[in-house]
Amino acid sequence: MEKLAIGIDLGGTAIKGAIIGVGGIAGDVTRVPTDAHKGGQQVLSNILSLIDELIKGSGRDASSFVGVGIGTPGFVGSDGTILGGAENLPGWKGTQIYAPIAERFGLGVSAANDVTAVALAELMFGAGRGVKNIVCFALGTGVGGGIVTDGKLYKGTHGMAGEIGHIVVETDGVQCTCGQKGCVERYASATAIVNMAVDMSQDAKGDDLTPFAAEVRKNPADVTSKMVYEYVAKADPIAMKVHHKACKMLGRAVGIMINVMSPDRIVLGGGGMMAGDIILDTVRSYAARHCWPAIFERCEIVHAQMGEDSGVMGAGALAFEEFG
Amino acid sequence: MEKLAIGIDLGGTAIKGAIIGVGGIAGDVTRVPTDAHKGGQQVLSNILSLIDELIKGSGRDASSFVGVGIGTPGFVGSDGTILGGAENLPGWKGTQIYAPIAERFGLGVSAANDVTAVALAELMFGAGRGVKNIVCFALGTGVGGGIVTDGKLYKGTHGMAGEIGHIVVETDGVQCTCGQKGCVERYASATAIVNMAVDMSQDAKGDDLTPFAAEVRKNPADVTSKMVYEYVAKADPIAMKVHHKACKMLGRAVGIMINVMSPDRIVLGGGGMMAGDIILDTVRSYAARHCWPAIFERCEIVHAQMGEDSGVMGAGALAFEEFG
Repeated sequence: MEKLAIGIDLGGTAIKGAIIGVGGIAGDVTRVPTDAHKGGQQVLSNILSLIDELIKGSGRDASSFVGVGIGTPGFVGSDGTILGGAENLPGWKGTQIYAPIAERFGLGVSAANDVTAVALAELMFGAGRGVKNIVCFALGTGVGGGIVTDGKLYKGTHGMAGEIGHIVVETDGVQCTCGQKGCVERYASATAIVNMAVDMSQDAKGDDLTPFAAEVRKNPADVTSKMVYEYVAKADPIAMKVHHKACKMLGRAVGIMINVMSPDRIVLGGGGMMAGDIILDTVRSYAARHCWPAIFERCEIVHAQMGEDSGVMGAGALAFEEFG
Repeated sequence: MEKLAIGIDLGGTAIKGAIIGVGGIAGDVTRVPTDAHKGGQQVLSNILSLIDELIKGSGRDASSFVGVGIGTPGFVGSDGTILGGAENLPGWKGTQIYAPIAERFGLGVSAANDVTAVALAELMFGAGRGVKNIVCFALGTGVGGGIVTDGKLYKGTHGMAGEIGHIVVETDGVQCTCGQKGCVERYASATAIVNMAVDMSQDAKGDDLTPFAAEVRKNPADVTSKMVYEYVAKADPIAMKVHHKACKMLGRAVGIMINVMSPDRIVLGGGGMMAGDIILDTVRSYAARHCWPAIFERCEIVHAQMGEDSGVMGAGALAFEEFG
């Protein structure tokens, strides 16, 4: 019988769940509302109901699954208690998630930060197949990360490892919500790209007022990173300037991670990577100047392969790693 | 019978060897010249002779040892070939070191970068006992490092991980030999501390010309980091300025490693740490501003406990990790 795990991806608005096989998602992805505003116990209760639904829908006994994997915002302690860092889930901090699942379904649970878990999904199912050491950058509203060392997800003792979005890449740079200045997240996240586009467009004058800048100035509130990259494709100078600044800063952080971890692959993913090869190529050219050549030449910089279901895949991968 | 390993610490001028037990060095440390100028094969031959001498001196059979551990400058591939990065050992690059030792003594060999290996020694015998995740900074002529994840030395696929001395901590900072600008090594190594002391003393004028600055200007070629810290103990303003700059920059790199790895402990060692608690305390205060508070509060910043024989201890630890 095929080995199967249950993967749960907890988000601020929806909880996604799926049965995961060793080849990836087996069947459909089910979504239920998170009900974040109702507090931690309601969120946990919704997770339990979703697991129940997935097991019943599979037509198999609970005991036939290797275990449950959960990707969650924030940090998870080694005993399955949420230690914090999940600001969009009030009351989630302090929730113990392993015991109730084990009690109700008799299954072991392995939970980790959602972005971290995606790194494990890339290792098992995607861009990390065939190698043992990878560092994943997830470029979205923020910049998150996950580290795989010697074929295992590296969580750190308290589930807090991988805060690579807060590597400082510019001394006295843009103020970050974390208290530091110049974090890579302030340049390479979708949010940051939009902010830089608005700022640079507003500063543009005379001949420098490109079509992109003019459009941004009309509706600064509607600018998206997708729009930036539509103009990058047309080589608009201001859009290109935004692109280069984002990639230069990301390249510095990538260079640091290459020097520190000497990974086989740096995997760039998340919504921010939808523009594709141009980001990869530009980041690569900047990263090359920010690490040892001997280490750089042994590290590939590649696209993530996990798509919109990366979260449940990562959760399933957690269960396979721990119990599979 | 007590488990014993053979530890070999290869340096630019001497090769040190010792029998290592699970409690540390068993017996004496033997030193022989490296003969670096005679090329890689001679260095290897000297290592083989030293192993032979250690085994004979122990009164035991070769087969009674768990294996041989070797710490070497540069990078070691997983098959035991030196991949490079050992500039002070001409001809060492390309040398295959596992096979000749296995052939002559019938023992397994585990080799790694010497600084990296010291991290493992700290884990087994010193400041890392009782925890599973540590990052070691070795402050000497340069700044090196070693990373232990989940209780194992993390070498990276090509033995190149841990180049934490080349984390850029100051945008457009001091030019480094690695090609980058602003590497932490350019501020926190003994060499850098001396350079900063000379520069700041030469710039000092009028009331700012402190006793330390005056002494430095008399004999700039004789300045040592030890001397800087003699004046730090007297609170000389220029010496303090050098100290704070070194610790601020080191604190930034420590903060990055805390965010990325969330280690249980950051271990600061090497000759540069001889001044003791004042460096530890100052680095701690700067590092606190350069990482997430939740991660920082779960990480201790402590002194290394391995002394001048850290190299052979690390080499022995490599053998225990692999074969013990």
